[in-house]
Amino acid sequence: LLPNRLERLEINTQKELYDAIYKLRVRGAPAIGVAAAYGIYLAAREIKSETYEAFLEQFRLAKDYINSARLTAINLSWALTRMERCVLQNSGKTPAEITALMLKEANAIRDEDEVVCRKIGEYGLSLLKEGDGVLTHCNPGALATVRYGTATAPFYLGQERGYNLRIYANETRPLLQGARLTAYELHVAGMDVTLQCDNMASVVMEEGLVQAVFVGCDRVAANGDTANKIGTNTMAILAKYYGIPFYVFAPMSSIDMNTPCGKSIKIEQRPASEVTDMWYQIPMAPNGIKVFNPAFDISYKSLITAIITENGIVRPPYADSLVKLSLDFNVR
Amino acid sequence: LLPNRLERLEINTQKELYDAIYKLRVRGAPAIGVAAAYGIYLAAREIKSETYEAFLEQFRLAKDYINSARLTAINLSWALTRMERCVLQNSGKTPAEITALMLKEANAIRDEDEVVCRKIGEYGLSLLKEGDGVLTHCNPGALATVRYGTATAPFYLGQERGYNLRIYANETRPLLQGARLTAYELHVAGMDVTLQCDNMASVVMEEGLVQAVFVGCDRVAANGDTANKIGTNTMAILAKYYGIPFYVFAPMSSIDMNTPCGKSIKIEQRPASEVTDMWYQIPMAPNGIKVFNPAFDISYKSLITAIITENGIVRPPYADSLVKLSLDFNVR
Repeated sequence: LLPNRLERLEINTQKELYDAIYKLRVRGAPAIGVAAAYGIYLAAREIKSETYEAFLEQFRLAKDYINSARLTAINLSWALTRMERCVLQNSGKTPAEITALMLKEANAIRDEDEVVCRKIGEYGLSLLKEGDGVLTHCNPGALATVRYGTATAPFYLGQERGYNLRIYANETRPLLQGARLTAYELHVAGMDVTLQCDNMASVVMEEGLVQAVFVGCDRVAANGDTANKIGTNTMAILAKYYGIPFYVFAPMSSIDMNTPCGKSIKIEQRPASEVTDMWYQIPMAPNGIKVFNPAFDISYKSLITAIITENGIVRPPYADSLVKLSLDFNVR
Repeated sequence: LLPNRLERLEINTQKELYDAIYKLRVRGAPAIGVAAAYGIYLAAREIKSETYEAFLEQFRLAKDYINSARLTAINLSWALTRMERCVLQNSGKTPAEITALMLKEANAIRDEDEVVCRKIGEYGLSLLKEGDGVLTHCNPGALATVRYGTATAPFYLGQERGYNLRIYANETRPLLQGARLTAYELHVAGMDVTLQCDNMASVVMEEGLVQAVFVGCDRVAANGDTANKIGTNTMAILAKYYGIPFYVFAPMSSIDMNTPCGKSIKIEQRPASEVTDMWYQIPMAPNGIKVFNPAFDISYKSLITAIITENGIVRPPYADSLVKLSLDFNVR
């Protein structure tokens, strides 16, 4: 309900958790991962089975259910797979004991997310100097993670250290996460943030107002292509045209070495009403109009200056550097 | 009030006409030119002076007033200058006789606009083949002219001739002229039109759904740079990146050989509330947020495949081809 009302949602069942992800009440890849971990714990609490085998069967049904809430965010299945490992590694224990261990594991995923964001923030800040302007898209912010955000983490750390950064936030049509979330959280934090429509970013770049573009991502493919909120690849193409570096911020959990390239990422089409009916509560487009509404787009590797992870800054050629990173840090 | 309500506005005074232009009730460069011609006629009707000199003085005050309603649209001053020529060429006549001649001149400007749009449509259609997809931005449509529109004129002529074109209309933030006007007028006319957010145009191009981009323009500079609705130059940069031709549709009245290049065109900044307050009638951005809201941007000549006028298709190098065009057709 931001930016006008902040409401906390208490979730007690896997169904409520599924709805929260599906309806974008939890959004942002890292936050979805943490939420999914707690969601599968809530599901486990609901399982009545006494034997391990029956428990595992019910667990896997719940895992598939929660996993179907969003198509593109790899963190969702990453967190669920990690929770499954916790179950499989404790097959000698009772369902009640396993459920208790799952809560510990979900807490660990939550705590690690904050550490990850802080590390990403340090690497990101090393790319900036005092007074720089940075353009950002969607909400790769604290509201998309446990704390700090990914692409916004350098802004929070920069503020702690007096960098006086100037942030330009794209509103991010159709759901306006940039206006409602990023502009909100950075403004509330006391930063110098300016809001513009997505189609004004070109003029922001042309006038020399920004020295870098920082975006989050939902998935990094093995070749360095990245999927992120619709509108991101336009920023990548514009940044290339104007000679401005384009940085993608990705926790290791967003890197998927099983996805060979951007073309193999399935992009969900979302409902037409998101585009046509968001204003005035009366339609702003003619009744019955066809609508094209992809949720994500692909920023191809040739457009990306570097990918920033909690384990360092990865540069082209990504096919090599991502393999090295994934071997060093044992990525799936 | 489109696309939900169509209301006709009867204008009887220069003040009403000024307001209609300032508040975008009349919009689109050609329509503004025609409206301005009638506006200065309405002003002349209100002048009480008996002598030519007093009439001319009052006329010029009215001309400056109407000319100040919008900064960027060259058609505004073009039409007013043409009406002034009508006054100056009839200095021997009485104010009442001159006023009657001004009505005839305004009618001529109106009729010529329709002829111009039809000619532009013919040249534009020659760039397409049956079944083509075309992406367009803002409303260079019938609602921006007397009839047919400029960049949309080929769609109307194509429809008459069974071309089965597929049109992709950008919604055009912040005021949504694409959703409210272009999608409306083409849908009502029975064409195959799809609406998308501005930041989805990149995916439309990437997926091969369009074979050309057609946009209108508010002003063409002598070197071929063009000013048009904010978001246009992003389309130009994307089209270049994807190798799709980018065509600017410009009646001769939009060509200004006195403007040397795009950098010399003054771009108006419009109110923040256009960006922050258009939805739900409650703000969709945090209270007090800074907003960057330029009304126009410049598509530089290197991004433009051709400029389509009623007198033919102009190709690079524009510095030469526009001089030749302006000499052939006696442009100011």
